[in-house]
Amino acid sequence: MAPSPKLLAGVELGGTKCVCILGTGPDDVRAVERLPTGEREETLRQIETVLERWRAQHGGVRALGIASFGPVDLRADSPTYGFITSTTKAGWRNTDVAQRLGRRMGGPVGFDTDVNGAALAEGRWGAAAGLDDFAYVTVGTGIGVGLIVRGKSIFGVNHTELGHIRVVRKPGDTFAGICPFHGDCIEGLASGPAIEARVGMPASQLPPDHPAWDFVAHGLAQLFHSMVLTTAPSRIFLGGGVPGGQTHLFERIQQELKRSLNRYVEVPELEQGIGLYVVPPGLGTMAGPLGALALAADAEAATAIPPLVTAASR
Amino acid sequence: MAPSPKLLAGVELGGTKCVCILGTGPDDVRAVERLPTGEREETLRQIETVLERWRAQHGGVRALGIASFGPVDLRADSPTYGFITSTTKAGWRNTDVAQRLGRRMGGPVGFDTDVNGAALAEGRWGAAAGLDDFAYVTVGTGIGVGLIVRGKSIFGVNHTELGHIRVVRKPGDTFAGICPFHGDCIEGLASGPAIEARVGMPASQLPPDHPAWDFVAHGLAQLFHSMVLTTAPSRIFLGGGVPGGQTHLFERIQQELKRSLNRYVEVPELEQGIGLYVVPPGLGTMAGPLGALALAADAEAATAIPPLVTAASR
Repeated sequence: MAPSPKLLAGVELGGTKCVCILGTGPDDVRAVERLPTGEREETLRQIETVLERWRAQHGGVRALGIASFGPVDLRADSPTYGFITSTTKAGWRNTDVAQRLGRRMGGPVGFDTDVNGAALAEGRWGAAAGLDDFAYVTVGTGIGVGLIVRGKSIFGVNHTELGHIRVVRKPGDTFAGICPFHGDCIEGLASGPAIEARVGMPASQLPPDHPAWDFVAHGLAQLFHSMVLTTAPSRIFLGGGVPGGQTHLFERIQQELKRSLNRYVEVPELEQGIGLYVVPPGLGTMAGPLGALALAADAEAATAIPPLVTAASR
Repeated sequence: MAPSPKLLAGVELGGTKCVCILGTGPDDVRAVERLPTGEREETLRQIETVLERWRAQHGGVRALGIASFGPVDLRADSPTYGFITSTTKAGWRNTDVAQRLGRRMGGPVGFDTDVNGAALAEGRWGAAAGLDDFAYVTVGTGIGVGLIVRGKSIFGVNHTELGHIRVVRKPGDTFAGICPFHGDCIEGLASGPAIEARVGMPASQLPPDHPAWDFVAHGLAQLFHSMVLTTAPSRIFLGGGVPGGQTHLFERIQQELKRSLNRYVEVPELEQGIGLYVVPPGLGTMAGPLGALALAADAEAATAIPPLVTAASR
């Protein structure tokens, strides 16, 4: 097919703000528009206004990608595919996002969680470029995990919610945790608000030698222990506000992870020297909007008509 | 393509015995031969002798499937693809299985772990028929987990080893665990040998009202909590010697799982009444050998030349 001059459009729909993006990748971002995530009908209408303006200005868009806060329904055969489902965000429960915006735009639509989108963007354009199997973990106001297996995000009847697994506590860690569902799941123990609840000050202000970091590193290492024994990512990209401001965490987590796995699985990056297995991502705050563009690109590719394949050409 | 009269061959390579199977599925098993898993060269030669005899008798086989004890290398682009790698079984470390048998047989070869094979067989012919996303868990001399996502087993740089995740202990459970690597990982806490080490008698003889079952059910529910929040299987099939002889475990585990998830993820099968989410598999001891046949069928399908696809037929 001849290359099309049209662009891809993306929407990162977050719990507090939306980012609409137009372009084809990090080196070709034509427009970015930010909106607050407010009342749902008003918010979706504002997004539609932006997308329709871009469509009019550029003669259409090739595809739309949406990376959304959750929980969302990702099962293509479900009547509520593309919906935000049982969210605790007021007024957003059972909200059709992808079907509605897809009808409006007309072309292929990709839809996934915000963290899966960010993971896909890191794999295409960021620190995970060239890797097929990896994990993207963000530790900030919550803990989100995107798992990429053979280049795709994975999910079953629900998407990954690994931030809510329960982890073995480091001896001496008696903090009750702040998760309203689980108390001391990993998000309840090691997210930014959890750290602030532990020590009475923001995580960013906590000195690296504060003993709370031992508990945080231990908990995150337990999360990663389970991940190594599940989808076995070739590397874990750890981003978000907490590790971003406390880079000592990377080595601590890897030491704890190595100790916990105890060579049951031989991860070369853990044996060859600390610092190569749990690493920072590359796209920073652009991972989310670029994730929406990556979803658009994948949706376009999935609906493209392939060239004829003959027995002789295989 | 016209149907071929030839058959599929499978090898379930276990730690103590091998089962060679010839046929096309559970209703069409033409031959089964069992061999002890002994010295590696002798064992592989015995397998080759069986396979070559079948090939001579039936004019070849369409494909071969191998479901092996591990750890194994499943990465198709790896030089040691199809090898048993860092096993603790004496004399079997770094053993080429799939490449060797594949060269001998000439046709397509499928290769996976024994538990992934069993899971695929349950999905094709057993209790998981019709499901695309599910998990198969066996609790016996060890704890093995097969995760099927979109009809395929998943793996990254290693295959799933979920039996070795560390789980939160039920208050009062002070058993040290028996895993030589991790002590009280779930296999160290709840496998058959672990239960016997807890109570001094085989799990099969332990009365259902023994308090050890509360600890076992709690531990397995923690494993399943993590699985629900990772690949989110639509159902978990729980087999192996321990639950097979102690059917009260199913309800106990589901009660613990429901309590632990605390409605963070709404699993309809857990809400609509206990007993529908964690269920027995259907193929019993034939799951392993039939898993090898399922891998053969998948290998054949993957190498088949597809019919021409034209734009008009899409």
